Amino acid sequence: MFQIQQLAKEIEKRSEGRLVSHLHAGAESVSVSRFAPISHAQAEHVAFLAQSKYRDAAKNCQAGVIVVTQADFDAMYEGGDVSRPVIVTENPYAWFAWAMQIMTERPLGEGRIDPRACVHEGAVIAPSAVIEANAVIEKGAVIGERVHVYPGTYVGEGTRVGDDSILYANVTVYHGCTLGRRVILHSGCVIGADGFGFAPFKGEWVKIPQVGGVTLGDDVEIGANTTIDRGALEDTVVGRGSKLDNQIQLGHNDKIGECTVMAACTGVAGSTSIGSHCMIGGAANINGHISIPDMAVVGPATTITHWDPSTKQMFGIYPAQDRAASQKSAVMVMRLGEMRQKIRALEAQVEALTKNEE
Amino acid sequence: MFQIQQLAKEIEKRSEGRLVSHLHAGAESVSVSRFAPISHAQAEHVAFLAQSKYRDAAKNCQAGVIVVTQADFDAMYEGGDVSRPVIVTENPYAWFAWAMQIMTERPLGEGRIDPRACVHEGAVIAPSAVIEANAVIEKGAVIGERVHVYPGTYVGEGTRVGDDSILYANVTVYHGCTLGRRVILHSGCVIGADGFGFAPFKGEWVKIPQVGGVTLGDDVEIGANTTIDRGALEDTVVGRGSKLDNQIQLGHNDKIGECTVMAACTGVAGSTSIGSHCMIGGAANINGHISIPDMAVVGPATTITHWDPSTKQMFGIYPAQDRAASQKSAVMVMRLGEMRQKIRALEAQVEALTKNEE
Amino acid sequence: MFQIQQLAKEIEKRSEGRLVSHLHAGAESVSVSRFAPISHAQAEHVAFLAQSKYRDAAKNCQAGVIVVTQADFDAMYEGGDVSRPVIVTENPYAWFAWAMQIMTERPLGEGRIDPRACVHEGAVIAPSAVIEANAVIEKGAVIGERVHVYPGTYVGEGTRVGDDSILYANVTVYHGCTLGRRVILHSGCVIGADGFGFAPFKGEWVKIPQVGGVTLGDDVEIGANTTIDRGALEDTVVGRGSKLDNQIQLGHNDKIGECTVMAACTGVAGSTSIGSHCMIGGAANINGHISIPDMAVVGPATTITHWDPSTKQMFGIYPAQDRAASQKSAVMVMRLGEMRQKIRALEAQVEALTKNEE
Repeated sequence: MFQIQQLAKEIEKRSEGRLVSHLHAGAESVSVSRFAPISHAQAEHVAFLAQSKYRDAAKNCQAGVIVVTQADFDAMYEGGDVSRPVIVTENPYAWFAWAMQIMTERPLGEGRIDPRACVHEGAVIAPSAVIEANAVIEKGAVIGERVHVYPGTYVGEGTRVGDDSILYANVTVYHGCTLGRRVILHSGCVIGADGFGFAPFKGEWVKIPQVGGVTLGDDVEIGANTTIDRGALEDTVVGRGSKLDNQIQLGHNDKIGECTVMAACTGVAGSTSIGSHCMIGGAANINGHISIPDMAVVGPATTITHWDPSTKQMFGIYPAQDRAASQKSAVMVMRLGEMRQKIRALEAQVEALTKNEE
Repeated sequence: MFQIQQLAKEIEKRSEGRLVSHLHAGAESVSVSRFAPISHAQAEHVAFLAQSKYRDAAKNCQAGVIVVTQADFDAMYEGGDVSRPVIVTENPYAWFAWAMQIMTERPLGEGRIDPRACVHEGAVIAPSAVIEANAVIEKGAVIGERVHVYPGTYVGEGTRVGDDSILYANVTVYHGCTLGRRVILHSGCVIGADGFGFAPFKGEWVKIPQVGGVTLGDDVEIGANTTIDRGALEDTVVGRGSKLDNQIQLGHNDKIGECTVMAACTGVAGSTSIGSHCMIGGAANINGHISIPDMAVVGPATTITHWDPSTKQMFGIYPAQDRAASQKSAVMVMRLGEMRQKIRALEAQVEALTKNEE
Repeated sequence: MFQIQQLAKEIEKRSEGRLVSHLHAGAESVSVSRFAPISHAQAEHVAFLAQSKYRDAAKNCQAGVIVVTQADFDAMYEGGDVSRPVIVTENPYAWFAWAMQIMTERPLGEGRIDPRACVHEGAVIAPSAVIEANAVIEKGAVIGERVHVYPGTYVGEGTRVGDDSILYANVTVYHGCTLGRRVILHSGCVIGADGFGFAPFKGEWVKIPQVGGVTLGDDVEIGANTTIDRGALEDTVVGRGSKLDNQIQLGHNDKIGECTVMAACTGVAGSTSIGSHCMIGGAANINGHISIPDMAVVGPATTITHWDPSTKQMFGIYPAQDRAASQKSAVMVMRLGEMRQKIRALEAQVEALTKNEE
């Protein structure tokens, strides 16, 4: 069971004082086992109000305590008696997220290096880090405090992993990369493979060594089987607080700003920069050498070949239809030129007819 | 060499009595080394007739024995003498598939745990399972009978793997997942990484722990480097007999029905359900929170943003053309509004002209 | 420091005599530490001229030596005194690529098998090969001279790896595959997983064993998390000198020619052939059973459902627009049939009006 007062204090701490909880009607003495939806919650649960339209349901629900905004609280109780324990906070959804973290996290335990891990004698492992069996840490790598490296994960020569990071099983980080603090790398992701660089020579391709690295800022999370190539000369960079979903590809020398989110299966070709606080849809395809501004939104399944400076949101989703209708649309798209010709011919004819009338 | 009679018996058994072989003209005493195409088959080969238009070729081919349907058999021999060994069966292609399985499979051998595997003392390994070198099986994991875990594969805490499953090299299954019987996981696939869930808070993203798991039904096959995220609260599910190709992404809380096939590079965002017996084309992009009915077909490279309930087949393939024509089409698609305006203007003018005529 | 004369000699050797350097004005006695851009280069740097428009900048730059074509050299010095060390060569970009290789490569060191590697006693490892910790080499595998197998990489039974190849960490190569010389496999790539082949039987899918392999020619490079499936009966093939970027999928029995480049996230369904010297854009989707000729170009994010024999370049990029405009375009694409009807009606009306006029 988790005491609400303890949770509130810990959330305030994790948010660096930015998410404060106001406890009403005895909320401070409630303890809960877990979250439950408003509709199912019982006395041992905490529930949160995500949308104001469910205010009545929240007011009457069986939860031991509910989390609401000040506006919802005011509307629910209108200054009258608060009939049940309530937590008022600026952002109940973030409160839920942090509370869930606190309620589900498991202690890392004491620092240890499994005897079946392969740690080079020239690597530096912080005493509180945990290196599991079959992990491989190469020469000159630096592993920070409380880092957890799962089995089968490879950390290349000279790569630095910041404090409190988690590298799940079967992750690969090549040499010469820099990971910030609290970075999470999911299984199968590959950080720092060679960028795709070749010089054409008489019909063949001569490999250009990629001597940059990859830098991931603090609080970056990288999804399963995502690949981020090392830079040709300078680093490929993902800024602080950005989150990349699974199966994403970043090419060499891409620069992603801070707190940008990118949904699964998106590919970004090389030397493109994407700003901070952007939202990039799943399965988007972004060409190389493009600059996308801060706060931009890219639609899912959208191909970006340039950025239109007059907008912050670019979409290019083309519709799926019934099979027969879709085939017709596809054929017609190829005949658009013909259609335009016909319209022009009609315009000329109608103009002539109109003139004759006059 | 494989005796046809033995093969027929074993196929009947594997199909649970549903695929029966009728042997004609001495087929029961034929033995073959392998399959060969009708055009190349020799006496030591078995061939099967995939399309009726090749009946004559099949009739005259050199194969030791041929596999045909009753309809093809009747047309080929019209009640007359059957001049060569023939197997008549309802589905020669399925007969071929099962026969190939029997002809190519290699015995697993006795159960064993390689001394270089890392098996937690709190894991339960069936005596007939084979755990190869460098595989890692965590605490509380349960590995069924005759399961084969290849090198470098990771099975997380409390995950259950059903009998006769195969986990190829360098697979990752996170904690708390459930795999049915005869599941096949190809290399590099990642089952149970965190779903992509974050609460926005003052421009940052607060991670929401993903406490559901992944459930894969019996006879599910998952391709190389495919990723299936764990659910936020409840499990992500792939139903019995469904087959997923390589490089597919399933988001948290997706539900895939039974015997659905999904071709490579397809991405499905979270909380989408796809029915049973569906066929999903390669490189399709399916948005989140969509419900796709049983027996549905999604075209390749098709983006699904909603499901049209009046159809079972949705396609959205947009054509590739010669480079110049394609650029023209792209520009014209952006001018469709203009074209429609012009048509409306023409309609008004022509209506006016027609009225004047009258 | 690297002596220019030595570099020139080594480049000539690596290019098999095809890239010759002509040294002017004392270039033969210059030594450099590394490459730098023309704009920043100092005396210890070598710079190369990529585009003729920067001739003046090159002429006046501070680099210890510059690499230029004969045409640029002639234009810069017009037969007059060459005022600074210059290297004249047919292809400065290829010169840069090879020089970078020479300047950055590190000696492999003596052949060794890490005691924590798992090498089957029936595998054949060349004496100069390096097999790192946790690599697994199965029975009958053959590893050539100077091959470098990184940790966590799996080489299946009977697979052959040609001389001077590099298999980075956590690569998987299934059994029965053949890799040429100087092949590079990046982390997470999976070579030889089963092709996606199933026979439909009463609503279920019967697995068809995939008994072909994968053949990669000399000098093939495969990107991180790329997957190449084994053939159903014959091998899937990637020809000599072809380069595949990350997250690519090749289906069973695909045949890729020589010196073809394929950008990231592209998927090719089974039984498709792509010629030599092709350039395939990123995130392209190529259907199965298609034949693409030599020297072809496929645009990025382009879906190929057939190949138009009248062209060498097929594109199908559909534009992203401002969100509102994009939604309008999407709706209009579905109404193209209606637009065509309206145009036809207008044509008929205008024809009638015109006839009446006459």
